[in-house]
Amino acid sequence: MSSLFKTVVLGAVSAALLVAAPTPVPAQEASLSEATQACLECHSGATPGIVADWRNSAHARTTPESALQKPAMERLFSAPKVRKEFQGVAVGCAECHTLHPRQHQDTVEHDAFQVHPVVSPADCAACHPAEASQFDKNKMAWAYPDLMGNPLYLDLVDHINGEYRLEKGTLEYSRPNPETQADSCLFCHGTKVEVKGTIERETDWGEFTFPVLTGWPNRGVGRLNPDGTKGSCSACHTRHAFSVEMARKPAACAECHKGPDVPAYNVYGVSKHGAVYENMSKDWDFKAVPWALGRDFSAPTCAVCHISLTVNPEGEVINQRTHRMNDRLDTRIMGLIYTHAQPKHPDTSRIKHKSGLTLAVDLEGNPAAEFLITPAEQEKNREAMQRTCLGCHSRSWVEGHFRRLENTIKTTDDSTKTATRLLQAAWKEGLAQGPDQGGSPFDEPLELKWVEQWLFYANSTRFASAMMGADYGVFERGRWKMHQNIKEMAEWLNLHRALKQK
Amino acid sequence: MSSLFKTVVLGAVSAALLVAAPTPVPAQEASLSEATQACLECHSGATPGIVADWRNSAHARTTPESALQKPAMERLFSAPKVRKEFQGVAVGCAECHTLHPRQHQDTVEHDAFQVHPVVSPADCAACHPAEASQFDKNKMAWAYPDLMGNPLYLDLVDHINGEYRLEKGTLEYSRPNPETQADSCLFCHGTKVEVKGTIERETDWGEFTFPVLTGWPNRGVGRLNPDGTKGSCSACHTRHAFSVEMARKPAACAECHKGPDVPAYNVYGVSKHGAVYENMSKDWDFKAVPWALGRDFSAPTCAVCHISLTVNPEGEVINQRTHRMNDRLDTRIMGLIYTHAQPKHPDTSRIKHKSGLTLAVDLEGNPAAEFLITPAEQEKNREAMQRTCLGCHSRSWVEGHFRRLENTIKTTDDSTKTATRLLQAAWKEGLAQGPDQGGSPFDEPLELKWVEQWLFYANSTRFASAMMGADYGVFERGRWKMHQNIKEMAEWLNLHRALKQK
Amino acid sequence: MSSLFKTVVLGAVSAALLVAAPTPVPAQEASLSEATQACLECHSGATPGIVADWRNSAHARTTPESALQKPAMERLFSAPKVRKEFQGVAVGCAECHTLHPRQHQDTVEHDAFQVHPVVSPADCAACHPAEASQFDKNKMAWAYPDLMGNPLYLDLVDHINGEYRLEKGTLEYSRPNPETQADSCLFCHGTKVEVKGTIERETDWGEFTFPVLTGWPNRGVGRLNPDGTKGSCSACHTRHAFSVEMARKPAACAECHKGPDVPAYNVYGVSKHGAVYENMSKDWDFKAVPWALGRDFSAPTCAVCHISLTVNPEGEVINQRTHRMNDRLDTRIMGLIYTHAQPKHPDTSRIKHKSGLTLAVDLEGNPAAEFLITPAEQEKNREAMQRTCLGCHSRSWVEGHFRRLENTIKTTDDSTKTATRLLQAAWKEGLAQGPDQGGSPFDEPLELKWVEQWLFYANSTRFASAMMGADYGVFERGRWKMHQNIKEMAEWLNLHRALKQK
Repeated sequence: MSSLFKTVVLGAVSAALLVAAPTPVPAQEASLSEATQACLECHSGATPGIVADWRNSAHARTTPESALQKPAMERLFSAPKVRKEFQGVAVGCAECHTLHPRQHQDTVEHDAFQVHPVVSPADCAACHPAEASQFDKNKMAWAYPDLMGNPLYLDLVDHINGEYRLEKGTLEYSRPNPETQADSCLFCHGTKVEVKGTIERETDWGEFTFPVLTGWPNRGVGRLNPDGTKGSCSACHTRHAFSVEMARKPAACAECHKGPDVPAYNVYGVSKHGAVYENMSKDWDFKAVPWALGRDFSAPTCAVCHISLTVNPEGEVINQRTHRMNDRLDTRIMGLIYTHAQPKHPDTSRIKHKSGLTLAVDLEGNPAAEFLITPAEQEKNREAMQRTCLGCHSRSWVEGHFRRLENTIKTTDDSTKTATRLLQAAWKEGLAQGPDQGGSPFDEPLELKWVEQWLFYANSTRFASAMMGADYGVFERGRWKMHQNIKEMAEWLNLHRALKQK
Repeated sequence: MSSLFKTVVLGAVSAALLVAAPTPVPAQEASLSEATQACLECHSGATPGIVADWRNSAHARTTPESALQKPAMERLFSAPKVRKEFQGVAVGCAECHTLHPRQHQDTVEHDAFQVHPVVSPADCAACHPAEASQFDKNKMAWAYPDLMGNPLYLDLVDHINGEYRLEKGTLEYSRPNPETQADSCLFCHGTKVEVKGTIERETDWGEFTFPVLTGWPNRGVGRLNPDGTKGSCSACHTRHAFSVEMARKPAACAECHKGPDVPAYNVYGVSKHGAVYENMSKDWDFKAVPWALGRDFSAPTCAVCHISLTVNPEGEVINQRTHRMNDRLDTRIMGLIYTHAQPKHPDTSRIKHKSGLTLAVDLEGNPAAEFLITPAEQEKNREAMQRTCLGCHSRSWVEGHFRRLENTIKTTDDSTKTATRLLQAAWKEGLAQGPDQGGSPFDEPLELKWVEQWLFYANSTRFASAMMGADYGVFERGRWKMHQNIKEMAEWLNLHRALKQK
Repeated sequence: MSSLFKTVVLGAVSAALLVAAPTPVPAQEASLSEATQACLECHSGATPGIVADWRNSAHARTTPESALQKPAMERLFSAPKVRKEFQGVAVGCAECHTLHPRQHQDTVEHDAFQVHPVVSPADCAACHPAEASQFDKNKMAWAYPDLMGNPLYLDLVDHINGEYRLEKGTLEYSRPNPETQADSCLFCHGTKVEVKGTIERETDWGEFTFPVLTGWPNRGVGRLNPDGTKGSCSACHTRHAFSVEMARKPAACAECHKGPDVPAYNVYGVSKHGAVYENMSKDWDFKAVPWALGRDFSAPTCAVCHISLTVNPEGEVINQRTHRMNDRLDTRIMGLIYTHAQPKHPDTSRIKHKSGLTLAVDLEGNPAAEFLITPAEQEKNREAMQRTCLGCHSRSWVEGHFRRLENTIKTTDDSTKTATRLLQAAWKEGLAQGPDQGGSPFDEPLELKWVEQWLFYANSTRFASAMMGADYGVFERGRWKMHQNIKEMAEWLNLHRALKQK
């Protein structure tokens, strides 16, 4: 081989590597606003990681105008027109962090700019109003009030996160402090971010004023922001690359959907779909818009079934993009306490069951139907989900799958009912203190076993059935644990009855 | 470098990228039969995902004749000659779905063709008879009768999946319904797929007749098919791409081998082998046939040790391909209840221990030797496995590893024996109802702890030892749990003895 | 397209594949010593896997001299000069396996060479003395004495791994045998490898003498080697590729940091950092030295925060490389039993608390301060860690994160204290036998629940807080289990008090 050829080949390989790796200054960069240029002067050195992420992002490489001119199916910009201040420039630091300065309680004067650190869905809505509007109707956006505004759930949260001290031989409970709540449930549900004043800091670039924030840092999907909005787009659309690839791959969802309460990612991981993703997706195109089954991907990720605009190879729509995830869900299988039709309004803390409970079902499993979608709406949502299934599976296959899921929903709810009856017997016989005895239903060992029955084992079994990851419906927190737990609850009851009698 | 050459190189890179991504119409497509062309006319639109998968598959791109002409070591086609109807065409929809129409109870007339939805190992055997024949001698093909045909295992299955209701203060058990069984153990073991009639459906392409099937959908490895055969090749060779890459990567096996009962994938994940796979395999060639250690891969996946034809870089065979996985296994370390030599026949439901138990070992650990392979056969299988180890490790290393595994087999069996003795004491003293008391050995809390002893903790510890993923032999369901469980069983016994006396 | 062009394209693709895949004979191979050539004559056939790994390694492709000539920031060779015997040759088999023959008790004459199988940090130090010296000050290098030289930890180890037999109705314990220890805790901590003689073996290449070694095989990070040194570089730098990519990716660490006692990898897996790694790192450069944030990677792996030399895109150092991992750690959050400042000396078995316990904290949580680093040293280490955080996050963000971690450290230690008080009550009342009653604190069910309190649940909660993987601080072995466990311990106590009274 001639040395010339060798040089050429090596050069080509190096070039390929440079293209593949994150590069700080891409060739296609769009014009930047003066404000953003001012940000970059210091922040390229102050926070080089996020600056590099942004430089590689679509935000840095295109302008809103060019995004608006794309054909409708390829367009991610959903506003009818481009705001005046965004014309002719890329979406840089200043475009997001100085928008709506008066609405943002966290705005501070920063090098002559009115800057806020906490970018909110209202800021993103400047270019993505359709997505922000859908997301606001999504339970996820309401994850803070859904949890903290429901006295029953709040009682559960408090007893999970609280502090327990032994005082004179007795366990004394005190409520958790805000840092613990932020580090636990609210990490995913979102904190309440409020401005508590400002602080002056000496930096390498001079002295600056910064807001002092409660509940910060946080990237929870239902965060309450200092501009009065709910939610955090960067929960899934990781700042500052905001890559569609990042949000379309399952690990983005795993941050909050991997625990025993909601093992969606785990179940996907042992499903055929998850195995195909794991083994074959290196050849898929995670950036294509619209996203075509058979051309860009060959098995679903979380986003394919629940969120993304998907088309067939001819470009015909399979499902429209939605950021209101329950548009494709008929039943809430994450039983709290039993399964039920999806709620009408994303703020589930508004649900008041006629039994007095702040739950969509009472302890007998009767639904608060007026707060839930109708069977016809359920059918419509199920059909939306099934359109994706039918891209690869026959109608018989799909109907068989959903019939089996329906059976699993029924049998798991039945098992929860058995556990509930056991707990109710303990409450009635004075072996444990439930609400009627003036106690919390979430603070004694038998009660915790009851919670595990629905929150861990019945949920896991249903997720396994819905997403075909059978391990999680058998030995891995599935039917094995569900029925072992019932038997242990019954044994506990018999043991404590016997002790009481003696 | 001439600019012409540059164009060529860049063009090649682009072309390579195009080849890598799923493309609907690859250049090298082979001729299709008229029947397959008829299928595609509707199904390209009806089920675009699986059509695209197939178009990217070797089945669509080659013909059986060209496959037959490959050198023996590169050949995946194992029939002596090509069936007449397959000559000159690629293996398309019709080639598999219309084969053996009379054997298939699920055959229906579909647009003038005799089509069956459930493709079976007998269909695959038209081109891959060696693999089908090996697989039929594999325990996996017998996973349905091995579980459901053994009264003892069936009792365990039923008590895991059954329904438990509280009636007048007592837990009442009823057997699980077929949908629950299909959603649980039989998801991996395979369902019994039987034709229960036909149904007419209106589709976008007119009205069609479809078979009504029990146990459908299912891709269990031991599925009983409507043509009377056992097994499902697509359990591992995911339809409709049937990629060798898919089956060679560990996630394919994880679908069924990740639970606490058989944590092979989990253990691999914390082993050195798994770490090398996870971190470095992006540069390996998962499509090469034969598969060369050092050239195509540098650490084993599941397939390397258990199934694949592997060679050294000079092309000399390390191990021959086998679809009878226990060809390279001496001992069944997945203790049911204790470890034992691999069974002679894959249908383990035929094993009758002289104690009367339908187990390969009795409760004392004595084997039903006449149903198990001999020490000489064990030695032969162990040597086959060790040939792979010796590709990277010295003889001293390998012997040390297997000696340590032997020790783990003994100590874990001993711990199971201790747990068995504790349970037997409870049975004898009337604190629990075992078979001699007319009860199931699988339905009381103490009995479930005994099951966890061997099925979860002893198994996990042995897999960890066999595959060098120590976490699963210590804190993650290993010796920590194994010995904690024994102590809790002993404590249970003492507690219930004390209560009985008072 | 002309057929010429086609040929060129196909050729280019093949060439690209050859470059990507492990190739047995790379073009850039450096000269080999005569001794290494002699090794390869047989070992290319005897152990082709590791020979191929080495052929693809930097060791095979460069010489120490060229490594020494690299600019300081790119240099991985840290010796001041090249040893005479390494001049002009690549680092091959013989360079490592025949070094320091007299120090190595495992040296044998092997085809006229003095070969030792167990390569030690002292061997690696011939070219990498800075790393070997740092590592020797790292707790990991002392993982054997830290565990086995501390009578309290050894008691825990023995009771985890021991054997339990039922003799006349009583559980009889006996200490674990050495193979079990090697298969369990010592798999990661490292075994004691000693020469117990030699053995003659007939091989395909003639008869050879090999050393007989105890505790072999093992790649534990704190292994005691036959040359008197501690540690195994190949624990992370997997032989025989020794790829920097392998050690920089999290799966390398997962081999030992994935269990419930130290769930670092699990927590990372549900963190934003882990999600970015999982979804986006295919485009990162894991081989670049120095490693530049924003250019080579955009989110931290384990190595980024704890070990690697990292720079900003302008090449300015963020953190210097260190193989003494606690250089960037202020607090030991892996509570044994409570958290405490990092120990001064890596041999923690030297710590003697004034209470008499061989622990850095007593059961009340009081530290053995004289053995621990000072608050000023803690501050220095914390600042080193924070330099990495500040590459992407603001000072307010980072301070908020560390304040929250501090709160978690306090509340989890408090919960451990409650569990300790419960256990102490049981000991005092004679319901369990602790050290003061002549018993082990690690062998009864209530004691095991106490161990799980700090070793599993409090640790998991702290790792989740430190690395932002909230699931492991809530339901997945976090606060849910931490507080459930306390309540179950209290219930146990009440139950056994009641039984005692009757």
